Amino acid sequence: MSKKLTKREDDYSKWYNELVVKADLAENSAVRGCMVIKPYGYAIWEKMQAELDRMFKETGHENAYFPLFVPKSLFEAEEKNAEGFAKECAVVTHYRLQNDPDNPGKLRVDPEAKLEEELIVRPTSEAIIWNTYKGWIQSYRDLPLLINQWANVVRWEMRTRLFLRTAEFLWQEGHTAHATKKEALVEALQMQKVYAEFAENFMAMPVIKGAKSESERFAGADETFTIEALMQDGKALQAGTSHFLGQNFAKAFDVKYTSKEGKQEYVWATSWGVSTRLMGALIMTHSDDLGLVLPPNLAPIQVVIIPIHRNEEQLDAISVKVNEIVKELRKKGVSVKFDNRTTYKPGWKFAQYELKGVPLRIAMGPRDLEEGTLEVARRDTLEKKNISQNDVVSYVEKTLEEIQNNLFNKALDFRESHITEVNTFEEFKDVLENKAGFVSAHWDGTNETEEKIKDLTKATIRCIPLNNKIEEGKCVFTGEKSTQRVLFAKAY
Amino acid sequence: MSKKLTKREDDYSKWYNELVVKADLAENSAVRGCMVIKPYGYAIWEKMQAELDRMFKETGHENAYFPLFVPKSLFEAEEKNAEGFAKECAVVTHYRLQNDPDNPGKLRVDPEAKLEEELIVRPTSEAIIWNTYKGWIQSYRDLPLLINQWANVVRWEMRTRLFLRTAEFLWQEGHTAHATKKEALVEALQMQKVYAEFAENFMAMPVIKGAKSESERFAGADETFTIEALMQDGKALQAGTSHFLGQNFAKAFDVKYTSKEGKQEYVWATSWGVSTRLMGALIMTHSDDLGLVLPPNLAPIQVVIIPIHRNEEQLDAISVKVNEIVKELRKKGVSVKFDNRTTYKPGWKFAQYELKGVPLRIAMGPRDLEEGTLEVARRDTLEKKNISQNDVVSYVEKTLEEIQNNLFNKALDFRESHITEVNTFEEFKDVLENKAGFVSAHWDGTNETEEKIKDLTKATIRCIPLNNKIEEGKCVFTGEKSTQRVLFAKAY
Repeated sequence: MSKKLTKREDDYSKWYNELVVKADLAENSAVRGCMVIKPYGYAIWEKMQAELDRMFKETGHENAYFPLFVPKSLFEAEEKNAEGFAKECAVVTHYRLQNDPDNPGKLRVDPEAKLEEELIVRPTSEAIIWNTYKGWIQSYRDLPLLINQWANVVRWEMRTRLFLRTAEFLWQEGHTAHATKKEALVEALQMQKVYAEFAENFMAMPVIKGAKSESERFAGADETFTIEALMQDGKALQAGTSHFLGQNFAKAFDVKYTSKEGKQEYVWATSWGVSTRLMGALIMTHSDDLGLVLPPNLAPIQVVIIPIHRNEEQLDAISVKVNEIVKELRKKGVSVKFDNRTTYKPGWKFAQYELKGVPLRIAMGPRDLEEGTLEVARRDTLEKKNISQNDVVSYVEKTLEEIQNNLFNKALDFRESHITEVNTFEEFKDVLENKAGFVSAHWDGTNETEEKIKDLTKATIRCIPLNNKIEEGKCVFTGEKSTQRVLFAKAY
Repeated sequence: MSKKLTKREDDYSKWYNELVVKADLAENSAVRGCMVIKPYGYAIWEKMQAELDRMFKETGHENAYFPLFVPKSLFEAEEKNAEGFAKECAVVTHYRLQNDPDNPGKLRVDPEAKLEEELIVRPTSEAIIWNTYKGWIQSYRDLPLLINQWANVVRWEMRTRLFLRTAEFLWQEGHTAHATKKEALVEALQMQKVYAEFAENFMAMPVIKGAKSESERFAGADETFTIEALMQDGKALQAGTSHFLGQNFAKAFDVKYTSKEGKQEYVWATSWGVSTRLMGALIMTHSDDLGLVLPPNLAPIQVVIIPIHRNEEQLDAISVKVNEIVKELRKKGVSVKFDNRTTYKPGWKFAQYELKGVPLRIAMGPRDLEEGTLEVARRDTLEKKNISQNDVVSYVEKTLEEIQNNLFNKALDFRESHITEVNTFEEFKDVLENKAGFVSAHWDGTNETEEKIKDLTKATIRCIPLNNKIEEGKCVFTGEKSTQRVLFAKAY
């Protein structure tokens, strides 16, 4: 397989697809729209999971596991939610195969084994979970109920792309129940904040916190909070959502609690999720024409050490020194790999780890051994530097931190320079066509205008930023009165 | 809900079912045969996962993720495997719902949205994984391929029981590819050993390592290695299996590699798995009529501290001291919970944590505060002891270790006293009926005899122990020649 990637400026979409496959992150499977997440890609996802899981637990949540299947009658109980997902559901109708009498050696669905009620493969778990919560919640003492689930879900998407939009994906879904509306709203906003902190501190990806317009809300939610990121091609990506569900599911599944005052009240709900889609966001935020660029806080390998040698004696001598360094670095919690394979040449290894986005590459040859030096190369800036072996631990620690910050700041600069205020629809279209990014514009607040703008430009309202400035203005499309700007963009 | 459990001697099966629900481990869901794993049960599973995952990684394995669905044509490629699972498969036939014209507000399967090829919800992933490996393996340099997956699988069981046998369950499945038969066999045995070490060192559950007889092998395997545990009712439980798959899947999916010598060879394979069934084994190995008993190495809460107080002042004074102790214990890596809720009485809390199997309970009242003491109760022996607050950290550390060992030894004693050698079929039946446990007997090695014994006694061959003593004997049923004893038992 050629290691050469298509360049971003030549074909951004092709660059992305090639990168995902060549960097060993994921590939398409034999099942339409479903991906295989390869070990290197999965290792990044595991690091994401570990950090998010820690953050969820620190905010008082516990993990649990609910069934993969949702009986049709439960699925349809909350009408808006059902309507929102009905068109993209994998449906189990039978529970047995049998030998195909017409094709020896082949199987067919056993027509006798038809389910009385069809089972939907969960596209999201509100229905099955709220049906369960009914049994768990009786009194105010059972609240709040703060639960998260790590799971796979299936949405039968017609156009799929690795990580960004797949029929099956991995995610976490938090589902909480509260005694009051206020508490549920606070929870939904808290989880949006957790997501934003994760995105910024670990993915080095700046995000804008906002609320969705009505038409972009989760099916069944009263309010959807979102974190929106900007990719290098100027398209926005919704990286995580947190929903205030009001009492919609409590009413659909009759979940009430007895208050301290002895009254029966419906429960208030939230749900929130991020998925393997974050992998796509991570890749597109930092990577370049040479391959993946990973922020150190999520890199499975933070430092790779490659020996440069002509013979086995040299390799042995280098290995002695490298093993000391590996030990020192591991003591400091740095994840380091010494690639001493003799089946591959150094040049091949250099290209390989560049493609895989390893933040720091250290090379050590016989001359370094004599002089007590080594060469360190940064993946983000591609800078190389010779340093003393004695300084390696402190240099690595400092530089990993620098890389993490540098990636964030670079992405932030790009994002900041790609939020453009416009006051006319001509400007609006011009920015979308010639500059891309977020367009900050006044909007009259109607679904109708939003829909028309989308039809004309493919741009949607990504969010109404939280803590937005209130200012008088006129809708960029209708000229009607408006009190604040919202952010439009083309989006993934 | 009454806290009182059915006694084991009255109805072991009822005791188990009640315990699982009352200790908040799991419950049945609205989906036939699928369970909800509740937060406390899931926390134990997470501890199991963490230890196993560490052991897999230490033995060189990486995690990845493969699709939930298997297209029918791939599913049927390895014939024995397909035959083994065809009768218990959930089958996806459609990908969309629509409004039901006959029932306003209801949905029905959209007949237009029928899949061209049915998708099987994975009962195990050999087929989809080996179809993928075909693209990953070309040369000897790509081998061995050592991959594990944490996933949910579905087997449409007719009789289900929480954790022990459910339609959907969580598991890990390792799938490895090797250049030689020997290497694959070594891998399969290595993973059996990993499972045995996990069972004994973490679950405190002694297991017998053995090989399955042909009729009990995994569908598609040339050899199945197993770890077999014994439950308190004298029934055996298969706790984990590791399969040597020969070249069966390599041939079915045409997976070949080029050897160092430039020859095309089929690859050798293993697969191995443990599941949430281990939760059932854990529960049944140690628990008693008061509830769950957990080994400290897997207990989400190792120590619970309960304040005994008459008023808020007393609680405040106790809390100051307890918080110091909590801090000290956490520093030592002990997982401790201070239950200072005022909505529940101490007696209720005592019963609750007993039911939930927390290994150590510490109580502290106003008098303890004066005298610098506290009361520690062991869940395994139910012994209580007053100790000085100054000694609490060392006492807790020492006692947790003692409990872990005590549980293992108790289970080992029970197991050892329940392996009975028999030499006649009369003895065989007598042991099964009146004593239970493993019956060690000579067997003529035929499927036919095995089948007849099963029909007559419900006992199956649990395993042919590894490192079995070779001795001349006569089959307990047919009197034919035999060279070694095998272990029979009734089993879960």
